[in-house]
Amino acid sequence: MKHFMEPKSVAIIGISRRSGPGSYNLMENMLEYGYECEIYPINPNAEDILGVKAYPGVKDVGQEIDLAIISLPRDLVVESVKECIDAGVKAIIVVTQGFADADARGKELQQEMVNAARHNGVRILGPNTLGVVNNFNRFTTSFMPLTREKAPVGLICQSGVFFVGAAVFSGQIGKGIDIGNACDVGFCEALEYMGDDPDTKIIAIHMEGLEQTRRFLSLAARIAKQKPIIVFKTGQSEAGAKAAASHSGSMAGHYQIYKSALKQAGLLFLDKDGQMGDAVRTLLQQPAIKGNRIAVITPTGAGGIMASDALENYGLELASLSEKTISRIANLSPEWMPLGNPLDIWPAIMKHGLKDVCAEAMDVVMDDPNVDGILYLAIAPELPAFAFLDASDDVNKAVPKERRKPLVGWVYGPNVKEINEKFEKEKKVTIFQTIEKAAWSLSLLRDRQRFIERA
Amino acid sequence: MKHFMEPKSVAIIGISRRSGPGSYNLMENMLEYGYECEIYPINPNAEDILGVKAYPGVKDVGQEIDLAIISLPRDLVVESVKECIDAGVKAIIVVTQGFADADARGKELQQEMVNAARHNGVRILGPNTLGVVNNFNRFTTSFMPLTREKAPVGLICQSGVFFVGAAVFSGQIGKGIDIGNACDVGFCEALEYMGDDPDTKIIAIHMEGLEQTRRFLSLAARIAKQKPIIVFKTGQSEAGAKAAASHSGSMAGHYQIYKSALKQAGLLFLDKDGQMGDAVRTLLQQPAIKGNRIAVITPTGAGGIMASDALENYGLELASLSEKTISRIANLSPEWMPLGNPLDIWPAIMKHGLKDVCAEAMDVVMDDPNVDGILYLAIAPELPAFAFLDASDDVNKAVPKERRKPLVGWVYGPNVKEINEKFEKEKKVTIFQTIEKAAWSLSLLRDRQRFIERA
Repeated sequence: MKHFMEPKSVAIIGISRRSGPGSYNLMENMLEYGYECEIYPINPNAEDILGVKAYPGVKDVGQEIDLAIISLPRDLVVESVKECIDAGVKAIIVVTQGFADADARGKELQQEMVNAARHNGVRILGPNTLGVVNNFNRFTTSFMPLTREKAPVGLICQSGVFFVGAAVFSGQIGKGIDIGNACDVGFCEALEYMGDDPDTKIIAIHMEGLEQTRRFLSLAARIAKQKPIIVFKTGQSEAGAKAAASHSGSMAGHYQIYKSALKQAGLLFLDKDGQMGDAVRTLLQQPAIKGNRIAVITPTGAGGIMASDALENYGLELASLSEKTISRIANLSPEWMPLGNPLDIWPAIMKHGLKDVCAEAMDVVMDDPNVDGILYLAIAPELPAFAFLDASDDVNKAVPKERRKPLVGWVYGPNVKEINEKFEKEKKVTIFQTIEKAAWSLSLLRDRQRFIERA
Repeated sequence: MKHFMEPKSVAIIGISRRSGPGSYNLMENMLEYGYECEIYPINPNAEDILGVKAYPGVKDVGQEIDLAIISLPRDLVVESVKECIDAGVKAIIVVTQGFADADARGKELQQEMVNAARHNGVRILGPNTLGVVNNFNRFTTSFMPLTREKAPVGLICQSGVFFVGAAVFSGQIGKGIDIGNACDVGFCEALEYMGDDPDTKIIAIHMEGLEQTRRFLSLAARIAKQKPIIVFKTGQSEAGAKAAASHSGSMAGHYQIYKSALKQAGLLFLDKDGQMGDAVRTLLQQPAIKGNRIAVITPTGAGGIMASDALENYGLELASLSEKTISRIANLSPEWMPLGNPLDIWPAIMKHGLKDVCAEAMDVVMDDPNVDGILYLAIAPELPAFAFLDASDDVNKAVPKERRKPLVGWVYGPNVKEINEKFEKEKKVTIFQTIEKAAWSLSLLRDRQRFIERA
């Protein structure tokens, strides 16, 4: 994968002289990104492209080429792949659509290019791909604009939507490999690369279909011991599987069988779009969970009930809080207040103020030996007018620097955005949009821990 | 409920002279809201409260009192209720906590006040409540700051979290009734009010426990024919039911039995926190759905697969698009492109530009007689740099003014917030955070339609 992720020289075949908005010019995007390497635009009708000397054909470059990127019309692709092979190119990305994702002719063309490459030890990524992105060295082959965080998140996907839509899927990407139709380079190669990559701490996978299942599962089981791997498998339904066949040419396979095999290999399995970003944030921000016993700290009794429902739904238990915890909060509460878990701190807040009570509750629950993880519900008031209802600073302070327990939260009120940001900045409490998602995130940590313990 | 929602005169009992941040002074909040009525603060130790003449006791007011609001310590509440009854007060809100939500003594006290009121035809809302909010006449009894939209959404809840957290629950509230422990005024009275209220078009309910089940179900079945009623039932799990008993003193009951009875009565049943706001937006913005056949318009094949999975998961069908629809999009696509539903328009976009293709696809699918509803996936690019990737204006224009089909969407990219707002402003496409939620919203409309048809 090194030739794909950090090539010393790149030929761009089928590159147009058009640039700017709507041109989808991948060379323009590559230059904008700022990666430093030799770039050889290939275009028989141009002297230069974007100020870089152009060549009529890849054979005319006369220099070593690590990576060729082909975005010609599909009928010209196979010929171009063969020319690349003849010119000694080491790796090829085929951006073009219309292969196994299309009709019978497309399937034939795809097979032809694979045959040519395999006989010559050349690797192909794609077709039907945006290629790669590597924010650690500012390299991309994508013709769509992308975000550029140096995040410790390695993404492997079968669609550019995970590159373009990173903000709504994984939240961030440090390195990404879009295997597209996966005619040659597939999940195994990409996973191996991410597994070995020191910049990557978490691996997120979007999977439509899987070939070489046995090899993948054994590789994944090995890597999952070192790094969490999350996988979002689509084509779950009959209708989805049919759509997958005409998207990446993938056989979606039997969903439940995939699900149990992937979970067995230690992968964290996602059911729905929207979960990947929550999983990434949880795994990046929170420590391992030692057990199944959760404390709920809440200024709303109704929220405590929702938390109880959600925790039970994900197989988590409400911790039996220690006597010390109960008595410290009881000291702050009216005598009539029945205390337990969920720990409803509202009556105490009415007596002693929100900030002190929240901080005290966080401190005592963090120390409670009966508690493995904490779900914290918080008010998000308008600031500065209602700052007395905002305990975010106090809670952040009350959480020890070396956090020993996962701490996830949910905020409600008219100012969710700003209070979220205050928590997000400290990364001590990971905040979710719903109580249900916060509970789910704890179950994700629990699943990861169970795998680690039996591995 | 009129005395609660639009009283001509209000006595506030147990009102403190403290005001400003952290005082939780409900009279201060009431004055701030701006409702015009007589206000009589009751405090034996004050000449006036916030500039309004105070009285030592409710009997000293000497004027007709529609509504008394009691926020005394719990041991003083029963006596105060009796004084209100003697003084001819018509309705009472008991804000105080510590009754059926607390210990055995609390249960006794609650029963005592109910007995006193029932013998005298006086109604009590609460205890353990923020009371009411009525944004149409700017009246509230809440001691917590609230948002103030004149929204056609009537909320009935058992916790102030739905008032304070409106932004994360129902999204907006026009009128709200927090029945708290529901010692006297309960779901039936509140529902009857919202059902008759011309300002209220949608009724949203948060339910922990339900008394008078038969009366409620028959009332709900009648009102649901006129207005959608959505209900979020908590205390679903054993742990949640236990927590409910010590929050509002409610018996949560058997969840599955409630669920089927409430659905049978035509209520739209919610399983998770976070769904209420999505349901409200859908019902406010989208027309009825005539059938079960959904078209997916997508610039991403992978997103189309996720949409197919989600639609099937909620029992919706992928429509068989008409020949006219297919041929109009085929004319824009490369010849190799297999077209169907999901309608993948990316190859057409690469040939003809995003704006024209999105608008054309929307137009043709809106007209397709085989389609009952539309799920549209859209790119959210940075503006103005990548405006050529933003079809929101074009799609809004392509949707006929008199929309005949529900149209829901999901956007992905680096600029979700701004593009969402562009759709939200026109209210033609209702946008959701995930594809899964967008599909769910169509199933909600389908459930509503099925009830209307069999009702």
